[in-house]
Amino acid sequence: MTYISVIDLLASDAIHQEFTVKGWVRSFRANQFMALNDGSTIKNIQCVVDFENMDEALLKRITTGAAVIVTGVLEESQGAGQRVEIKVKTVHIEGDADPEDVKRTILSPKRHTLEKLREQAHLRVRTNTFGAIMRLRSKLSFAVHQYFNEHGFYQAHTPIITGSDAEGAGEMFRVSALDLENPPKKEDGSIDYSQDFFGKETNLTVSGQLEAETYALGLGKVYTFGPTFRAENSNTSRHLAEFWMIEPEVAFNDLADNMDLAEDFIKYVIRYVLEHCQDDLEFLENRLVDEDKKKPQAERATMLLREKLEFVIANNFKRVSYTEAIAILRDSKPNKKKKFKYLIDEWGADLQSEHERYLVEKHFECPVILFDYPANIKAFYMRLNEDGKTVRAMDILFPGIGEIVGGSQREERLDVLKEKMAALDIPEEELWWYLDTRKFGTCVHSGFGLGFERLVLFATGMTNIRDVIPYPRFPGHAEF
Amino acid sequence: MTYISVIDLLASDAIHQEFTVKGWVRSFRANQFMALNDGSTIKNIQCVVDFENMDEALLKRITTGAAVIVTGVLEESQGAGQRVEIKVKTVHIEGDADPEDVKRTILSPKRHTLEKLREQAHLRVRTNTFGAIMRLRSKLSFAVHQYFNEHGFYQAHTPIITGSDAEGAGEMFRVSALDLENPPKKEDGSIDYSQDFFGKETNLTVSGQLEAETYALGLGKVYTFGPTFRAENSNTSRHLAEFWMIEPEVAFNDLADNMDLAEDFIKYVIRYVLEHCQDDLEFLENRLVDEDKKKPQAERATMLLREKLEFVIANNFKRVSYTEAIAILRDSKPNKKKKFKYLIDEWGADLQSEHERYLVEKHFECPVILFDYPANIKAFYMRLNEDGKTVRAMDILFPGIGEIVGGSQREERLDVLKEKMAALDIPEEELWWYLDTRKFGTCVHSGFGLGFERLVLFATGMTNIRDVIPYPRFPGHAEF
Repeated sequence: MTYISVIDLLASDAIHQEFTVKGWVRSFRANQFMALNDGSTIKNIQCVVDFENMDEALLKRITTGAAVIVTGVLEESQGAGQRVEIKVKTVHIEGDADPEDVKRTILSPKRHTLEKLREQAHLRVRTNTFGAIMRLRSKLSFAVHQYFNEHGFYQAHTPIITGSDAEGAGEMFRVSALDLENPPKKEDGSIDYSQDFFGKETNLTVSGQLEAETYALGLGKVYTFGPTFRAENSNTSRHLAEFWMIEPEVAFNDLADNMDLAEDFIKYVIRYVLEHCQDDLEFLENRLVDEDKKKPQAERATMLLREKLEFVIANNFKRVSYTEAIAILRDSKPNKKKKFKYLIDEWGADLQSEHERYLVEKHFECPVILFDYPANIKAFYMRLNEDGKTVRAMDILFPGIGEIVGGSQREERLDVLKEKMAALDIPEEELWWYLDTRKFGTCVHSGFGLGFERLVLFATGMTNIRDVIPYPRFPGHAEF
Repeated sequence: MTYISVIDLLASDAIHQEFTVKGWVRSFRANQFMALNDGSTIKNIQCVVDFENMDEALLKRITTGAAVIVTGVLEESQGAGQRVEIKVKTVHIEGDADPEDVKRTILSPKRHTLEKLREQAHLRVRTNTFGAIMRLRSKLSFAVHQYFNEHGFYQAHTPIITGSDAEGAGEMFRVSALDLENPPKKEDGSIDYSQDFFGKETNLTVSGQLEAETYALGLGKVYTFGPTFRAENSNTSRHLAEFWMIEPEVAFNDLADNMDLAEDFIKYVIRYVLEHCQDDLEFLENRLVDEDKKKPQAERATMLLREKLEFVIANNFKRVSYTEAIAILRDSKPNKKKKFKYLIDEWGADLQSEHERYLVEKHFECPVILFDYPANIKAFYMRLNEDGKTVRAMDILFPGIGEIVGGSQREERLDVLKEKMAALDIPEEELWWYLDTRKFGTCVHSGFGLGFERLVLFATGMTNIRDVIPYPRFPGHAEF
């Protein structure tokens, strides 16, 4: 490659040297100042065109959105706003962008709503906001892998298509290769899935946890990082039908170790983006400040984006048992004044989003780890406590996001696990392999699931989960 | 955590110090020598039990497969085969493994076939072979991310569920949330997918390329690394219905740049595992040597596993045009002697696996990059050459593996792209967003897809792709 990226060029000290740079025109002022961006950074390189000595037809084709190849000399910039600029020798138009066509798209240089940007998700990554979000998302994703690699974890690529629907984490999508218009039938008239691709009914996974457990009991420390699916008709700003989940699972970790791991992990990846995404974070922070100006004082953020991230790193997550949380909520103002939609009056109640937000945003004002939940509101595989009524579950709640992590110590005792499955009518034949792990060298082990997009939401300060994944899938939407 | 992993313990110099180590018993000889493994490495730590001073009931529970927590003092080992060992103070049995039950599983200490191991895929990761494979797979996966991160790429998480089936890379799985036993119907009796979750028919992706292209034209250099799917009834040792694919896509890269990238990338990740997986590679290499002893001389490998990997790093991949390859094949011995199943007699023939293997394994004896294929045997999005009959496609062929990479420079010209789509009856409405990228600042760009499991096959020396992914999906099999 004989050209240089904008990010490297902006950091270069090679004044008076010639460079070639390739990218897209963000703006072209006064027939002279071309702001060129190549996606490597949010910043543009200013390319100064000697318009008096350039072909006029060529000049006209330097328009917002056009792809160009610029060759010129790096010079110290006289103008404000940049240290260096390119004094252009030649411009080659690689691909035009007809201004009339551009006007009809979000590439046109004016303010577009996030809704509008979503409709043109194939172009939005060329905007400053979405370039910043997607670079940050990528760095955060890399930080996830690096954390686990440094800490002795192995990644387990657990299956996406699953023949088991026993986990019960939510509605599942069916996967089939049958001709659904005319499927083979059994004698009783029902579909004969034995003739389907896998010889049985299959679904898209809702979690790789059970398979990850089998791997943790061989490799010790493992994690998954892959897509998971929910066929739930949740038209909210926090839910996607397809999202990426991170699920570490560690042999010999108990619930306290699990909390330590989750907290250390989250702090590490946030520290990583603070260090590696300064320009994008600065842009996103300023964007939020602008957004806040339109809001009434009471609704404005109390911390700047980077302050918020620094705060998470600097402070211990508050660890609170479910039982303590219920006491706090029962005595809280919104409960006494009947402001909660679901009033808390006794132990055993499932916590709603309004309660989680109260605890995190009003009461503790920091990330909170809730643990030891009532057994009957949690999944079958969670370790039953000695009290016989709570399980070693934990949820991590984040300000503005709500639940970001859900995890538990797993029930390692074969007899207790079988009892819990029986009580929930989960057939042992379905999970024979899972039960096997409790027969052969079972041990204390724990893990959690972290919804990656919620982490990106938090780190970017965005508020709609559809804006932190390239092509969001939600009810009625599988475009692109 | 107050204990140490086996990998750290084996590297420790803290002789006479006390440690706690947690893992599974691999063997227990002479009531004295316990080989303990925790998955962190293929190597075991020898734990020497003072059986004369230990409770007999406890001793009996130290059996292959049991989970134990051992506390003891690190000492220099007197025995052959290890530098250090643990002189045991206490053993806690965390989870038993009944020898009678173990006997019925692949955990029993004898030789099991790979087929048998596949049937117990939930336990096979506890064997030396699969522990080695899966650790190596994980390190290779990390190397992929590290390569792209170091080289200025951003990861784009392209969608798994897709509403588009225009790419035509193969049979797709249908995804639906409808009640398939009783789906809503339209007036003409066909299924009314407008009532399905996404309001239309959806499938599992066969490639993230088209979406990755939209991102490359904003962020410059991107890659995907996610699961892809084929509903093809391929019951071979090289095909899976669900597999992980790596797809880099780079703006302003032409086909030569694309070849450079692929070669550099492959060499980097192989170098990474050579450096980071020495113990596992040594084990896998010895395993292959043992396997080879059962084979006739002519079928044995000419290089040891690590020699083969070093060879790939040290040598340039041979770049050969399709036209040259056809000439070589036409004049080859197996063609003249009619040993090929599909004889090559003229330009335009699609290359079969037998031809690829001949080129790579007999003629060139090194990795080969074939390029400039006939347009009519390649996909619509590949850049048409000036000759009007070939496209800027490239395939990388590896010895023993066959095609490991398929890529191309993409057709960046809107008019040519539209013509090719029309000729193949691909409706423009389906890919309006893809065409948009050619309207707004289109540019030369290129990318490729690399099947991750084929890379793992190559790096481990395994021969069946079902043995390099935790829970393989293929016709009739979606267990676990």
